[in-house]
Amino acid sequence: MHLPARSLELTQVTEWTDGVAHARQDSLAAEEPLEIRVDGTPLTVTMRTPGNDLELAVGFLLTEGIIESNDQLAEVRVVPTDAGPRSNRIDVRLGDVQLAPGGFQRTFFTASSCGICGKASIEAIRRRGLRAPSHEFRMQPEVLCRLPETLRADQQVFDRTGGLHAAALFDAHGKLIALREDIGRHNAVDKLVGWALLEGRFPLNDSVLLVSGRGGFEIIQKALAAGVPVVASLSAPSSLAVKLARELGLTLVGFLRGDRFVVYSGGFRCLPKEF
Amino acid sequence: MHLPARSLELTQVTEWTDGVAHARQDSLAAEEPLEIRVDGTPLTVTMRTPGNDLELAVGFLLTEGIIESNDQLAEVRVVPTDAGPRSNRIDVRLGDVQLAPGGFQRTFFTASSCGICGKASIEAIRRRGLRAPSHEFRMQPEVLCRLPETLRADQQVFDRTGGLHAAALFDAHGKLIALREDIGRHNAVDKLVGWALLEGRFPLNDSVLLVSGRGGFEIIQKALAAGVPVVASLSAPSSLAVKLARELGLTLVGFLRGDRFVVYSGGFRCLPKEF
Repeated sequence: MHLPARSLELTQVTEWTDGVAHARQDSLAAEEPLEIRVDGTPLTVTMRTPGNDLELAVGFLLTEGIIESNDQLAEVRVVPTDAGPRSNRIDVRLGDVQLAPGGFQRTFFTASSCGICGKASIEAIRRRGLRAPSHEFRMQPEVLCRLPETLRADQQVFDRTGGLHAAALFDAHGKLIALREDIGRHNAVDKLVGWALLEGRFPLNDSVLLVSGRGGFEIIQKALAAGVPVVASLSAPSSLAVKLARELGLTLVGFLRGDRFVVYSGGFRCLPKEF
Repeated sequence: MHLPARSLELTQVTEWTDGVAHARQDSLAAEEPLEIRVDGTPLTVTMRTPGNDLELAVGFLLTEGIIESNDQLAEVRVVPTDAGPRSNRIDVRLGDVQLAPGGFQRTFFTASSCGICGKASIEAIRRRGLRAPSHEFRMQPEVLCRLPETLRADQQVFDRTGGLHAAALFDAHGKLIALREDIGRHNAVDKLVGWALLEGRFPLNDSVLLVSGRGGFEIIQKALAAGVPVVASLSAPSSLAVKLARELGLTLVGFLRGDRFVVYSGGFRCLPKEF
């Protein structure tokens, strides 16, 4: 599996163990800002782990509702800057997409924050046109239980830093399709979605999305935008993530550990029929 | 310790354990949007766990550089809305603070995203006037090692949901001063800082900030804005968090577990002199 060159940084640290301090070298998960521009206009800056930046930019545009398919992408490129050997600026040229002046701001605001109550937040998702993912997709519970082990085996940066979130796509048989890591949970998902978009594998209606951290509202929103039918997490979802998953018919699984998991929504996709 | 009434929600789930599914009730960490207004103008919307909302609003304004002390707060209030029994809208009236039109936007953008490389991000923090925290503060390494246990004992919502981040303040003797929990790591820190500000305990130059999750750039930025001399995390910091802590002279500790921790910056505050 590919390990992006800039995702790790070495540094000197002091470790205190049981009353004694000693110096050693340590690997840190890299964090740097990335500016995403659309047709030359700055849209947002996100703190991310460098690597897969083009994926992150287009994934972000898709999951935040600014684009809907890769037909709308005319060009995606790194903008050269004076700031050292690698640039932290991506420009996405859109083809036929016409956005009203100030349209980005509004879209982004609506998508990322959504009014002032949970109900209004879910309404905003519906207004974006997001619908229930595929009702055909099924995964055996035993297959679901094996996903975390596969994820961990491939999570290279985390192994060395302990500091990254991972997001991975699997097919119905538990085969790993793609894995991305980032200091930001949302970024890891956006990189994955951007990868699928650029590879022409979109929408992701025959995939399971596994995330290493907590499942909040925004992760579910991004999964719905990508057409993912099942989101599984190693940890707990929030109340609003569960409400959104139930309202829009997405399967949401939490506490996926060993031979156990908790189904919060859409159990028909991952439990035997008798349950 | 106080457990806010709206921080938990009960729901029906299906648990799969070793080949058998059964229904049970589960507690979820609550997530709802909060709109923060300044003098009536919407500034931002953040997804947060309800509870301690006034603290969150003023803490956010302080750590993002919009205010610098509680002298600048004329009134902080919940704005009544039609959206059910409790409002998700806070208005902060500022006294003498005059902000240029569009000033919020700029300040907020600079504080939360800061240019397009790590160096520029740290420069932006300096331009805000943030300086090194107290050089007088000291904590014994053995005292530092006891903090996570104290945190866990008081982390009530996490115990029931597994879904919350915690941030806590301790004094130099390891006494817990305050603890806040939220689905958002940044929100937990902002609630804590806002509490200190409203209680007149500001700046926090004789406290250690312990965070349950990863230590990224924005957590260090918030700690510097609050005057905290030591930030400790149970997990790993990012590369840019370490750079910022070193540049501004803050003590940064990671992997605080059992009788072990790693010092990334400012070891003089928490290691014996001979090291």
